[in-house]
Order: sequence, then C-alpha cells, then structure tokens
Amino acid sequence: MTPANDFSVWMQSIQARTETALDHRLPAKTIVPTRLHDAMRYATLGGGKRVRPLLAHAAGSVFNAPAEALDTVASAVEMIHVYSLVHDDLPCMDDDVLRRGKPTVHIEFDEATAMLVGDALQALAFQVLATPSLVSDSQRQVSMLALLGQASGSRGMAGGQAVDLDSVGQQITLEALEFMHIHKTGALIRAAVLLGAHCGNADTTELSKLAHYANRVGLLFQVVDDILDTEADTATLGKTAGKDEAQNKPTYVSLLGLSRAKALATELRDEAHAALVDFGDRAQRLHQLTDFIVARSF
Amino acid sequence: MTPANDFSVWMQSIQARTETALDHRLPAKTIVPTRLHDAMRYATLGGGKRVRPLLAHAAGSVFNAPAEALDTVASAVEMIHVYSLVHDDLPCMDDDVLRRGKPTVHIEFDEATAMLVGDALQALAFQVLATPSLVSDSQRQVSMLALLGQASGSRGMAGGQAVDLDSVGQQITLEALEFMHIHKTGALIRAAVLLGAHCGNADTTELSKLAHYANRVGLLFQVVDDILDTEADTATLGKTAGKDEAQNKPTYVSLLGLSRAKALATELRDEAHAALVDFGDRAQRLHQLTDFIVARSF
Repeated sequence: MTPANDFSVWMQSIQARTETALDHRLPAKTIVPTRLHDAMRYATLGGGKRVRPLLAHAAGSVFNAPAEALDTVASAVEMIHVYSLVHDDLPCMDDDVLRRGKPTVHIEFDEATAMLVGDALQALAFQVLATPSLVSDSQRQVSMLALLGQASGSRGMAGGQAVDLDSVGQQITLEALEFMHIHKTGALIRAAVLLGAHCGNADTTELSKLAHYANRVGLLFQVVDDILDTEADTATLGKTAGKDEAQNKPTYVSLLGLSRAKALATELRDEAHAALVDFGDRAQRLHQLTDFIVARSF
Repeated sequence: MTPANDFSVWMQSIQARTETALDHRLPAKTIVPTRLHDAMRYATLGGGKRVRPLLAHAAGSVFNAPAEALDTVASAVEMIHVYSLVHDDLPCMDDDVLRRGKPTVHIEFDEATAMLVGDALQALAFQVLATPSLVSDSQRQVSMLALLGQASGSRGMAGGQAVDLDSVGQQITLEALEFMHIHKTGALIRAAVLLGAHCGNADTTELSKLAHYANRVGLLFQVVDDILDTEADTATLGKTAGKDEAQNKPTYVSLLGLSRAKALATELRDEAHAALVDFGDRAQRLHQLTDFIVARSF
C-alpha cells in the first residue's frame, strides 16, 4: 500500500470509530427528555471531518496510547466542538441555516432546544472525560479536565468567539486576527493533541513540543478555512460558502490576499513538521494529518 | 447568642466568602476579551442568595471539610447555576429582563454576549473543580467532576429545562412536575450537597444519606419558589413575580392550591430533617438551612 493509501485507510478507520464512540456516549433517543436527546444526536452524529478526534488519535499514536482512552478524549473534544457550532449558528450569533450539509439545529428543532443541546453537550464532554480510570494516574486525569476547561472557556474557545463578534466590520491587524484564531479554533485543537498525548503518558517535555506543533496546526487550519471559504462552493463545504465576506469578517484572505495566505499556509505546515522532528517515525500520523489539512486548500 | 442569631451570622459569613471566592476565580475585567469578562462578573457577582454554596458549606461542616476546598466546590456549583440563569433569561427561553434586582445580561450587554457568558461560566466551573489537589484522593476528584457533569447535563439540569419548555401550557400530573424539578433544580442542589461532603471525605453510606436529604431539599426549594412566585412582589423577589402564572406554567400552587402546597413544604422539611438524624449535631447547619428555606415561604 502506498503511504497515501495507508493514511486514507487510517483516517477512515478513526472517523468510523469516532462515530461509534460518540454514539455510545450520547444518551439514546428513547431516554427522557427524548426531544433533547434526539437533537443532541442530530447535532453530533453522521457528519463532520472529525479533525480534532483525528489529531487526538494521531498524537496518542506517538506514545502507543490505548485506543479506548483515545476514543474517550476524542469524544469529549468533539462534543465541545459540536456544541460551539450549534451555539455559533444561532440567530444571535452567526445566524446560519446549514451545517455539515444539514439544516442547523435551531432550524430542524427550535432555538431553545439548540441552546440546551449546546449546554448539555458541553456538560457531557466533561462527564465523558471524567470516565473512571481513563488514565492510570488520576492526578493526570484531573489536569486533563482542567486543560479542557481552560481550552473551552473565556481564555480559550469562548473567548475567541467573543473577540470574533467584536471584530465584525472592524479593521483589525494580522496580530489581532491571530489572537482571535489562537483562541477560537487553536485552543481546542491544542487540547485535542495534548489530551491524546496524555493518554499515552507523555512527559512535560514531550507535551511542550506537541503544544508547539498544535499551535502551528491550529493557525494552519484557520488559514486553510479562510482560503476554502473564498474558493469553494456551498455544496463542497456543507456549510454556507462566502459567509465571511458577506458578513464583512476579517480573514487571512481579506488581510493578506489569496496568494500570500497560501504562502502562509505552507510556512505554518513547515513549522508544524519541524516541531515533530524529535519524535521521528512515531509522529507519522501527525505529519500526514498536517499535510492533509493543507491539501484541502490547494 | 441565640441559635437563630448564630445561624444568621454563619449564613452571612458563607455568603461573603462565596463572593470573595467567586471574585478570585473569575478572570479580571482587564483581561482580554474584556467585555466578556466584564459580563461574566456582572452575571455572577453582587447578588443571589447563594443557596447552593450554603448547602455545600453546610454539608462539608458535617465532616470538618477544609473551608478552602468548600469555597472551590461552592464556586463551581454557583457558576453552573448562574450560567443556567443567564441562558434561561434569553429571549428564546424565558425572555426575562430582571434578575437579582438588575437588568439581565442580554439586556445590559447583548444576546450573543449572554450566550457566551453562559458557555464560558460552564467551562470555568469544571476548570475550577479541576483545581490541583482539591481533595487528597485524585480518583475522588475525578468522580466529583463526573458528578457535576451529570448534574448539569441532559439527565440533570439542562434536561429539566427541556422538560420545562415542553410543559408550558400543558396539563401535567404532579408526578411529571416532580420529575421536571428533580432535574431542573434538584440535580444541582444534590451536587452542591454531595460535593461539599466529598471535600470532607464522606464515605458511600454517608453520601447516600445526604443524597436522600438533598432530594427532599431540592423539591422543597421548588415548592417554596412556587409559593413565593404567587405571594411575593417583584421588588422582594428581585425577579419578575407572577411569571409562572402569566406564562401558564404548571407549578405546585397551580396543581395543589396554596394551602396544600404549604402542607407539602412542611412534609418535605420533616423528611429532610429525618434524613439527617444519623449525623446528630454535626448536621446542625444543614438542619437550620432547611428551616431557613421553608421560612422564606411563610
């Protein structure tokens, strides 16, 4: 099998096992409140590229982490990501009607249900990450929970969304745009990588190298997203294309132009690769995943 | 000092230290994103009866739990409570403009900010509960985090809110009303009591007795709330009075009538007291707190 084929098989297997892992950890539709559980499943299952679960598994593979533990951290991080999309799509935020090729939760159900879906998915993410004996050292598990809390909160993802709201229609600098993305997207991507590594008992030095890798990949992911929002159509994206420009949101493309944004993506990819050097072949999946994220945009 | 005076002094001291504990655990207004942090502090500080922190401290006092640990669990539970109020007040939910005597967060700030305030407070609650070495046994701390996740999520508080939404304008039975409140209010009250007890290393039997106590107090609290909503005025409540009737929401008063609702409150108080018998004088604060909750309604 060629390396590219092998990666594609690996990626599909992680996406499939993530779907199963999420399915098992979400309450059944038959459990009261049935409508809420139905909506939580609608929001979470059957879609998405599962980039964060892929990163968690790839980081775990560096340290031979147990697959079951990786499923748990991948599920927790993906639930946080999904809740943020559900809330972000609400009328008081981005007001979007399409997500992952389906009507958004507040369109398919209603606004109050969409709010509660997000709230309940966030709680479930922490509950899932607090699975007994997830890792052998419970003190490590407590710090993993603190990490997810920080990554999701006002100094992480939710904080990035607040800055994003304030930036609409504003002239902002490249530094301010980077600050926003490091929080809005980067914090949770970093958490996915570090939680995966924690499952394999990575030490402080290893975690610090992976944090550097994750910071580059987090920005890379956003630069690529901005390029895609400009170039792709709605059918390909599964969400409304050209939304950033229509909403007058600052992006890497609006600030740098398309070709410099692509050059920045290449630069970030190289920095991400460089951060993995010390792990040698063990970081193969992280290396391939980085290339895959870039390839989406070219 | 009379017992009543002594209790009142204790209560005020816990309320004061809870204010300080929350203040220390919330990001400063000067930290970016400043508007979000300002709104988080506006929502959380300077108001509220702090019933859940009082319960956590009272439960902890049964086992001589360290005050600092109790401040941490009290802060975590209160942050969950406050986030639920902020989301509940939004136009797509209860659409309320007054809370704790002040304009609600979406009125004082805006809807998107109110949504993010709730989201970020929930994340912070888990981060706070994941404070390193909160209790000596980290495995216990992991199960405390799982407990808060369950109490807050779709099979706890958020689930109760979903049932509440579905019940507006519906004829429901007393059993269905009880189911709703056991989740909407009861789950977090139970978590407050149990987390306080965990800080004092309570064993399984002790936790189970306190869970029974908390279940009775959770319902008691709601019955009293329904009585107050009928009898008190907006100025006294600090929130809009008569709201339940105006919104055609089922309550204990609408289902049972005022005098039978008051009789139920007395009955629940007696059951709560009975659940504390084995703890003797060590449960003095829990005993007094139960009486205090009832006294609000007579």
